[in-house]
Amino acid sequence: MDQEFDYIRWLRQQIPPAFGVRIGLGDDCALLEGSSAGWLLTTDTLTEGVDFLLQSATAFQIGYKAMAVNLSDIAAMAGQPRFALVSVVTRPELGTSFLHELYRGLQSAAAPFQVSIVGGDTNSWPQGLVVSVTLIGQETSRGVVRRNGAKVGDAIFVTGPCGGSLLGRHLRPQPRIAEALALHQDYPLTALIDISDGLAADLGHILEESGVGAELLAADVPIHADAVTRAATTGRTALDHALNDGEDFELILTLPEAEAERLSHDPKFGYCRRMGQIIPAGYLLIDSRGRHPLTPRGWQHRIN
Amino acid sequence: MDQEFDYIRWLRQQIPPAFGVRIGLGDDCALLEGSSAGWLLTTDTLTEGVDFLLQSATAFQIGYKAMAVNLSDIAAMAGQPRFALVSVVTRPELGTSFLHELYRGLQSAAAPFQVSIVGGDTNSWPQGLVVSVTLIGQETSRGVVRRNGAKVGDAIFVTGPCGGSLLGRHLRPQPRIAEALALHQDYPLTALIDISDGLAADLGHILEESGVGAELLAADVPIHADAVTRAATTGRTALDHALNDGEDFELILTLPEAEAERLSHDPKFGYCRRMGQIIPAGYLLIDSRGRHPLTPRGWQHRIN
Repeated sequence: MDQEFDYIRWLRQQIPPAFGVRIGLGDDCALLEGSSAGWLLTTDTLTEGVDFLLQSATAFQIGYKAMAVNLSDIAAMAGQPRFALVSVVTRPELGTSFLHELYRGLQSAAAPFQVSIVGGDTNSWPQGLVVSVTLIGQETSRGVVRRNGAKVGDAIFVTGPCGGSLLGRHLRPQPRIAEALALHQDYPLTALIDISDGLAADLGHILEESGVGAELLAADVPIHADAVTRAATTGRTALDHALNDGEDFELILTLPEAEAERLSHDPKFGYCRRMGQIIPAGYLLIDSRGRHPLTPRGWQHRIN
Repeated sequence: MDQEFDYIRWLRQQIPPAFGVRIGLGDDCALLEGSSAGWLLTTDTLTEGVDFLLQSATAFQIGYKAMAVNLSDIAAMAGQPRFALVSVVTRPELGTSFLHELYRGLQSAAAPFQVSIVGGDTNSWPQGLVVSVTLIGQETSRGVVRRNGAKVGDAIFVTGPCGGSLLGRHLRPQPRIAEALALHQDYPLTALIDISDGLAADLGHILEESGVGAELLAADVPIHADAVTRAATTGRTALDHALNDGEDFELILTLPEAEAERLSHDPKFGYCRRMGQIIPAGYLLIDSRGRHPLTPRGWQHRIN
């Protein structure tokens, strides 16, 4: 496929030699330097009509988001992102300039973290646009933070206000790489996850993997202004949007109660908000009217 | 998406703990042990209607092929495959048993080489089936073999007969991993590539990257029986099928003339056939009627 070769030739010109890359684009495989640190691997795919619509998202935005959601998965284990592979299935009529803009979006998300694109695959297909990114990161000297380490009594924090991302933030997620690395450096995190399915659902994944429960204080769940705006038209509460909207890409973390007070007042982490506590079992929301079972609504594929 | 979670839960049950995998499926990322050897990375995507048709390929075959074509890229650099990530975009009506069969096909290609599936992503989409595999391998102590090392005077070999893969071999490619590792161990290979676009086109990639030319002896190009069968109905010659059909997944290799005689008579590598020589420039086919310019036909997306 000539278009593929032209695109790879163009990509090879865009991507400078990078530290740790012995062979980049243009051979059968990329070749990375060995390293004694462990390697993190994650992959996420965006599909037209499900994760974006071409009428409302630009090629740049689609590329940016495809890279950013993968960066967020590396953040969710407190790792350092390093390299990416990009597989694009493109509709022929979108043309070359669309692919170039898509690539600029991918680069725009990757560059702030010195992530290099080292390989990929481009195919033409009439059915729609599919962008799949595989991201490779490395663990720091402190190891990684998993979903399964939350302990009874731990405090639960989130790195920022949630809800209403559909108003536009879902197209320009800010991967919390720097925040995750700094928190991991300064605090003994016991569990960590990023919010893609929704705050309640993703905290639920920590609970399931850790074999514990949680109670959240409704008044302490940080609500984004976009959640309030959305609530005005959806008939749902802003809190409901904060708990159940997807694609906030903030991080949920747990840590021992003994460290919670320090984090709450640490000026370096002013964006972290405490919202609850790990309990032996159950999943509860506490408000002025009492304690209510919290049932995360499953993430629904949504059209943006 | 509940279907995704069910599928991941099922996958976690299928995949035993593997050497070198500290965290497999079920967290935000997989985590691999560090290693001083370099890491090979490659990705390849199969799309419905382009790389396969659901009427003529089973879920098992699609999974097998998606893994095998990536294994072939690791073979093409004489690396050792280790780990895989699998991204599936599936049509809802295909159901769970289809995904299970797809996975069994992936495993069936991976297992002979002790390759572990360590991560993935599953999405639902009405437009069609897309299977994207990212494969991670490691270089051996002898390093990798690239496309760009062919030297004037080198002999050109291929690991088996080519052409007519559309008759069925394209759905069950045999990645030449063991062959590549053994050749790399015993011979000073100067360039290596696998045949996906076609023998003439893929040798062309070696020539382009190495800045050299080649002459092939028509009588020495090994022609698969399937190429002869195809020629009977297509009006093309069997040699034309051998040179220009895609998806043979044999390897083309070059090595110094001084080693060519030894390889030609090495019983361990009886499947290797010498078919030509590297020259300073040009791309020629030599037959009883003389020397003809060889113009590889670009690989065409084809419906199987």
